[in-house]
Amino acid sequence: MSPHKRIKTLLTNDDGINAPGLYALYNEMKKMGEVTVVAPDSEKSAVGHAITLSDPLRVTNFQKNNDFFGYAVNGTPADCVKLAYWALGIKPDILISGINLGSNTGINIIYSGTVSAATEGVFLNIPSFAISLTTFLNPNFSIAAKFARKLSQVILKNGLPAGTLLNVNVPAVEHENELNGIQITRQGNAMYHEEFDKRVDPHKRVYYWLTGQKIKLEKEADVDDRAILDNKISITPIHFDLTNYNCLDELKKWKID
Amino acid sequence: MSPHKRIKTLLTNDDGINAPGLYALYNEMKKMGEVTVVAPDSEKSAVGHAITLSDPLRVTNFQKNNDFFGYAVNGTPADCVKLAYWALGIKPDILISGINLGSNTGINIIYSGTVSAATEGVFLNIPSFAISLTTFLNPNFSIAAKFARKLSQVILKNGLPAGTLLNVNVPAVEHENELNGIQITRQGNAMYHEEFDKRVDPHKRVYYWLTGQKIKLEKEADVDDRAILDNKISITPIHFDLTNYNCLDELKKWKID
Repeated sequence: MSPHKRIKTLLTNDDGINAPGLYALYNEMKKMGEVTVVAPDSEKSAVGHAITLSDPLRVTNFQKNNDFFGYAVNGTPADCVKLAYWALGIKPDILISGINLGSNTGINIIYSGTVSAATEGVFLNIPSFAISLTTFLNPNFSIAAKFARKLSQVILKNGLPAGTLLNVNVPAVEHENELNGIQITRQGNAMYHEEFDKRVDPHKRVYYWLTGQKIKLEKEADVDDRAILDNKISITPIHFDLTNYNCLDELKKWKID
Repeated sequence: MSPHKRIKTLLTNDDGINAPGLYALYNEMKKMGEVTVVAPDSEKSAVGHAITLSDPLRVTNFQKNNDFFGYAVNGTPADCVKLAYWALGIKPDILISGINLGSNTGINIIYSGTVSAATEGVFLNIPSFAISLTTFLNPNFSIAAKFARKLSQVILKNGLPAGTLLNVNVPAVEHENELNGIQITRQGNAMYHEEFDKRVDPHKRVYYWLTGQKIKLEKEADVDDRAILDNKISITPIHFDLTNYNCLDELKKWKID
């Protein structure tokens, strides 16, 4: 694709259509062409790869500051991508999900609505990536937004391997020169130690609240979380074939009958 | 593990604690030892690998027919497993998620609450499998339930490869002798052609309803959906490392800066 062609971008996220990360990405991607936003009407963090089967989906127009326009959907990120493509007829050159507030790394990406939306893009053969800023505090999305635009151009030039999306995490730095470049990474497999806060509500009913932290973080430079700690932009190629091919032969030896 | 040892089983599902598939599995697994049920208080199909972060979780006692007892949780299947382990202190020998009403095969497993619960078990180093009956009509869960018990014994004898769960689909046959054995399979990668029914509600508002069907079903005997069409029980080993290792080297060649 010529660098001068105006490209059609579809944006979505899981923080909801009013999120500042999406707004920053929208205004950056507009520099390259036409941008369509189809995003959840409210925050959908940790919805994983959910889709809505039991309820009707509705689409409403959304605008902000007279420079941001989009479609808000009462569904999940995955719903938004399906609906954009199949119901609204949007056929983009590239799909970007984000910019997420907070990292999407390690086994956590299994819970990520941001990543799931990009996976939906791949199901539709649209070059897709998810992008996250690895902080919740005083987020400055401009560096990540600029990187998203640059990466879009590279993806459109090189193409992505079939069935593969990129999961991008941008470290939270104040100035671009604090970044130590880009690392192609693998998904970390560090486990979590979780806890549930057990509390009692004003009506004397017990309730639980999930909390937890990663333990035994891997130290190899090519692990997503490690790259971020090193102030590198982490890019992990991920796919949706969950088969563990390495153990097919072992299982075939089992005597089950 | 000795075949005579009584084993501790944790059961969950995504059809909800009142689902007949869970009930059949409970009564079968009781023959082997102690069974604890921690399951969603209502149907949670297609919730994917969602977890509840923004709301408190509550646990209530549930019983049915004086022979089924469990804990109902106002959360997702993944929440149930986390809560069982970390908050209720349940440390089972094996975790089974199901028996799901309807198959969990191909790229659809990405949306499956049933599979996600078994994945949570693997995160906790509990041998885990998901089991589904491949029909929605007149389900007879007894063959699948018996198979689950048999498979549990085999898993406890052989162990499962690290970080791997089994995704089991049992064809809907009336009599056990209609089954053509067991096939170790890989996840099918057939895509979906989806449609949204566009409708108008009684208040004249437009809404959309998702519908769709798999296209270009793969024909190889080792594909999950194919095995089921051949009346074989399909067992797919799956893991949660989504990295596409095959394209790491290609991506490293990209010039992004």
